[in-house]
Amino acid sequence: MAAGGVIAVFVTACCCISAAMAAQPATISPAASNIQKEKTVALQHTTDSLTILMLLGLLMLTILTVWLFKHRRFRFVHETGLSMIYGLIVGVIIKFIYATPTPPVTPDDSKVWAVLSESNNQTYYSGNAPPSLYISLPDSKNATANETFKYNLTSDGSAKPEPMLEKAVTFEPELFFNVMLPLIIFEAGYSMKRRHFFKNLGAIIMFAFIGTTISCLAVGGTMFGLTRLMSYTEFTLNDCFFFGAIISATDPVTVLALFHDLHVDVDLYAIVFGESVFNDAVAIVLSGSVETYGQLSGGKKFNAEAFFKALGNFLGIFGGAFAIGSLMGCATALITKYTKIRDFPLLETALFFLMSYSSFQTAEVAGLTGIVAVLFCGITQAHYTYNNLSAESKDRTKQLFELTNFLSENFVFLYIGVSVFTFQESRIRWDAGFIFASFLAIIIGRFLNVYPLSFLLNLGRTNKIGWNFQHMMMFSGLRGAIAFALAIRNTSTLPRQYIVSATMIIVLATVVLCGGLTTPMLQWLKIRVGVDEEMEMQQMPPNAVRSESGDPGEIPRTKGKAWLVAKWYNFDMVFMKPFLTNCRPTLMETLPKCCLPLAKLLTTEEQMTQGESHRDNDSDTDMIIDHSQLSIGESELSSIPSNHAENDTSRKLPIQEPETYDLGLGHNSQPMNLRVNLPGPAGDKV
Amino acid sequence: MAAGGVIAVFVTACCCISAAMAAQPATISPAASNIQKEKTVALQHTTDSLTILMLLGLLMLTILTVWLFKHRRFRFVHETGLSMIYGLIVGVIIKFIYATPTPPVTPDDSKVWAVLSESNNQTYYSGNAPPSLYISLPDSKNATANETFKYNLTSDGSAKPEPMLEKAVTFEPELFFNVMLPLIIFEAGYSMKRRHFFKNLGAIIMFAFIGTTISCLAVGGTMFGLTRLMSYTEFTLNDCFFFGAIISATDPVTVLALFHDLHVDVDLYAIVFGESVFNDAVAIVLSGSVETYGQLSGGKKFNAEAFFKALGNFLGIFGGAFAIGSLMGCATALITKYTKIRDFPLLETALFFLMSYSSFQTAEVAGLTGIVAVLFCGITQAHYTYNNLSAESKDRTKQLFELTNFLSENFVFLYIGVSVFTFQESRIRWDAGFIFASFLAIIIGRFLNVYPLSFLLNLGRTNKIGWNFQHMMMFSGLRGAIAFALAIRNTSTLPRQYIVSATMIIVLATVVLCGGLTTPMLQWLKIRVGVDEEMEMQQMPPNAVRSESGDPGEIPRTKGKAWLVAKWYNFDMVFMKPFLTNCRPTLMETLPKCCLPLAKLLTTEEQMTQGESHRDNDSDTDMIIDHSQLSIGESELSSIPSNHAENDTSRKLPIQEPETYDLGLGHNSQPMNLRVNLPGPAGDKV
Repeated sequence: MAAGGVIAVFVTACCCISAAMAAQPATISPAASNIQKEKTVALQHTTDSLTILMLLGLLMLTILTVWLFKHRRFRFVHETGLSMIYGLIVGVIIKFIYATPTPPVTPDDSKVWAVLSESNNQTYYSGNAPPSLYISLPDSKNATANETFKYNLTSDGSAKPEPMLEKAVTFEPELFFNVMLPLIIFEAGYSMKRRHFFKNLGAIIMFAFIGTTISCLAVGGTMFGLTRLMSYTEFTLNDCFFFGAIISATDPVTVLALFHDLHVDVDLYAIVFGESVFNDAVAIVLSGSVETYGQLSGGKKFNAEAFFKALGNFLGIFGGAFAIGSLMGCATALITKYTKIRDFPLLETALFFLMSYSSFQTAEVAGLTGIVAVLFCGITQAHYTYNNLSAESKDRTKQLFELTNFLSENFVFLYIGVSVFTFQESRIRWDAGFIFASFLAIIIGRFLNVYPLSFLLNLGRTNKIGWNFQHMMMFSGLRGAIAFALAIRNTSTLPRQYIVSATMIIVLATVVLCGGLTTPMLQWLKIRVGVDEEMEMQQMPPNAVRSESGDPGEIPRTKGKAWLVAKWYNFDMVFMKPFLTNCRPTLMETLPKCCLPLAKLLTTEEQMTQGESHRDNDSDTDMIIDHSQLSIGESELSSIPSNHAENDTSRKLPIQEPETYDLGLGHNSQPMNLRVNLPGPAGDKV
Repeated sequence: MAAGGVIAVFVTACCCISAAMAAQPATISPAASNIQKEKTVALQHTTDSLTILMLLGLLMLTILTVWLFKHRRFRFVHETGLSMIYGLIVGVIIKFIYATPTPPVTPDDSKVWAVLSESNNQTYYSGNAPPSLYISLPDSKNATANETFKYNLTSDGSAKPEPMLEKAVTFEPELFFNVMLPLIIFEAGYSMKRRHFFKNLGAIIMFAFIGTTISCLAVGGTMFGLTRLMSYTEFTLNDCFFFGAIISATDPVTVLALFHDLHVDVDLYAIVFGESVFNDAVAIVLSGSVETYGQLSGGKKFNAEAFFKALGNFLGIFGGAFAIGSLMGCATALITKYTKIRDFPLLETALFFLMSYSSFQTAEVAGLTGIVAVLFCGITQAHYTYNNLSAESKDRTKQLFELTNFLSENFVFLYIGVSVFTFQESRIRWDAGFIFASFLAIIIGRFLNVYPLSFLLNLGRTNKIGWNFQHMMMFSGLRGAIAFALAIRNTSTLPRQYIVSATMIIVLATVVLCGGLTTPMLQWLKIRVGVDEEMEMQQMPPNAVRSESGDPGEIPRTKGKAWLVAKWYNFDMVFMKPFLTNCRPTLMETLPKCCLPLAKLLTTEEQMTQGESHRDNDSDTDMIIDHSQLSIGESELSSIPSNHAENDTSRKLPIQEPETYDLGLGHNSQPMNLRVNLPGPAGDKV
């Protein structure tokens, strides 16, 4: 508490300093231009530092408050909501400081005016101001020698007075998209509870892909209708669908953090998590496609070619990014398996970090979407590479990404809060009617997403999605940083400026209100909290588990429709895992006899000596945020009946026997000739 | 190796893509300005991503090569040298790609020309181009309404064709000074082997402050003489001293990493480490002061007022930054001690990280030097806060800073390498004569720094600095990132452009050559390597240690001149440590009786229950990079003779008894009344 006070004083001090700095008149005498330039740079540097310091102060304040709330078990406001509220308060203060002395008067004589040269054969007006200007100035000593200087249009494109700090604290979408977002999404993939995720894969894909598209169309359609009704004639159909696309991205941060803290029912958790993570990627790609479509169709009513191009674009971008992310993950797995880099955990962690981040940048360079790439890279890293890491690197990578994720999340929400009031006025248009209409539209969109799809899914699910889950999913459709960042990325037209304001309000309202009301809502809907995943699995008798769950994605109990999933699972166990990781079984055990020389080549010594620390390598259960759940491996094993493998003759994969650590080599067709090759410690297990 | 191949292919691919992109003609049709703008943004984004990707690829390549070298115990090139060499190669490739198709022809009709308006009452010429221009453009619909647009001068100030990638990969000093450098220096302070550092504090301060000033003056003077001799008349005395200041910063990265790997003699390590870390700060402040002096004196011969202002500036900046850094460290210690935030290691680590970084930004905002602040913040955090952290946070912070430090270092050297060839030609002037002169000057400067000061120091030291150590110090004066970044920060005048080229070559030559030759040099000078610090301390009998070392900074064996140090040590043990950390003894044990109520208030429960895990809390020995040395605590204790405390009557501080974990309460004046308050586990120790 004392500490909170210290920080508060400190933040106030920052604000005072900033106020003092703002009061300094901007006297620009162009006499000593060099010294002047240096001073400008220095002042800019100080302002930047002040902005950073202010954000750091706010982050610290948030952390201390979060701690206080956690300490007192006070769950009414979540940390992201808190960040945003603090940001809002500081935004108001900044606004107030800069608004009070009326728009800061920049002395007019310090402005250097220019006119466009007659030689330009293009007419320019305010709508198409040239992006850069060239002027030619004579040399002071040699009048015949001219030097050319290039001037760039300032980002906002207008010469309205821009108080420095105000400009500086405006949300920078590139920083978000290039640094924060990859970190957040990678962590989501890396720390995913993959078992429950894959169990609900069908539902997740349905909600994320079809649901988001439905939501996009519904919101777009509703907005189109409402804007006609309210005569916002500037809005084209394309603008409406663009809004639909960006606002359909639900936020994976706030609700999930609460769900995680509360140990909410695992299936609900998995579905909401999966939906919101994929959602973001879908929304990013979808909004890009809508823009592409708009550019191709040229504003015409409907253009089939442009539509299919946009669709192809969507699929191509998603597929390409998926491929890049997965391949980069596999490459990391290969490097960590076949080199002895694990002897130097620092190098290993650094490499892991860099390879993961480069999956993002590779996708961006290829014109795909980095977020999808980094998500799948995270999943692949967790599934394969994690097994190869040294124990120290396992800890390091987990902790590193946890920390960067935490900081990024809070920073983003803080930044959103500050931006709401400090966003450049020329780039935003406030309109109560439009905001109201958009709230209506997102409710309709979410409704048409959740309930019809749940109905359809329930037709095929044994483990139905109950009404209370559906209501909770409806309620937990918070909009967050992605929607915000997508909205402010382009504010060149009037409709886009309306969209920015509506998105801001929607993000604020949903994060603070829905985020804050999640706990009461869970109670009201009678959704189980405090579910101990491990206990859950142990208490159910194996047969109950087996009969109860019949999801399309559930692997060991394969049905016809999940044929592809089963095939993949088999391929993964027989080839991918032995090839890419240091886990048992080795390729020598899983591949047919004819491939033995190749298999020998691809099997490392580490892999041969594995076996004792079996549980460590069972990455599907191991790679979860919660350390208390590290022992799930055993309980999971016991939940899979041993006589199950006979159901599927196509499967050679080693199903784990209950209660023992036998890796299922007994089911394998050629175990006998391999046993001799196994070194001591593993030998007695086989 | 296969992995290295993969990465190499990948980097080549990047280069090809970049070449392909460069080949695209820049067709700018200003017709659809909005779409055009979006496309420009998109292209810029792709270029940025490509640059980042290229650097990531190079970093990965460096890591893999470093691993290979470590794996094969091949120590000829250090990782920083390696980064730089890779950077150089890629720089050449980029240069080659962009140089081949002759300067890319930007179609002249796409340039929009402007002329300065008649209304400006200032004459502009090429030397004082206005930093920003305003133009007024009519609205397309409403011709009477004009809108004003602001244009900023592009950073390089000229309109020479700038290939995008070339511009993008140029070293960005702000990124270095604001992000990389704080991380590197904080890690230096945080992981400092404080025991040896403080033992050699006198020598370190002497070399860092006096030595760097001598070096600055010597280099400046030599350069002034040589430039007169070679008739580079542009160089003022001020320019020469500026060069002297920036080039006197020796690099803490390369040599130390080698020393650390080789386990070089601990005293040599401490002196070189301390010198190079403080050095950087001194050089930064010194160069700033020289600039201030230049601005104040206005180029006149000598101006006493300006000189003393610059000196005052120097002292004020150093003192202020020291105060900010230390206070921020203490604030962190207080927060971690008096809140229970250690229950949530993630929050704790995040707070620790943010508070440390904000010490840097606070100092920058206050117009001081952030690097000094962050260095002392690091030292304070290690000395106090580290003791209060949860075990998980101890690990996390160490690992986090180790990783960020590693990445920053390599990134910086890589970046330097790439920049050498891609640095904008308008900002650099190559001249063999000047470069040769500067090499001569730095050798003279280093010589006048090392040998005379060693001589002076040896007069007072029992543990003399031998000739071989002096030669090694002379040899290990590598120049690194600081010198480079300081040089390229301002390239507005011709002398500064000469300085950039000389600094680049000096950095390259010293890092690659001296860095590579460190190991042979150590052998040749017969300097002990493979010194196990722990063994070192254990093998010496306590009395031998005592008589052998008589450094000014050595604390337990205080002499008259180190009175202040002893006072501080006493104050630290009696007040600061008990107040700021959870270590024993508590304030209740160290403060006089009258303060008991206050002391009780300031003693936490954690602190009371400490005692068993005594060694963990002895942060002076604990906070070292090398985990194998964690057990030094005991051996250090045994090296201090117990009968020593009687020599100094002013000292109430608890001298640790040999062979026992008694914290010296027997020497304390009021231990008896406290014992009753102590809870069980600690009680039996006291």
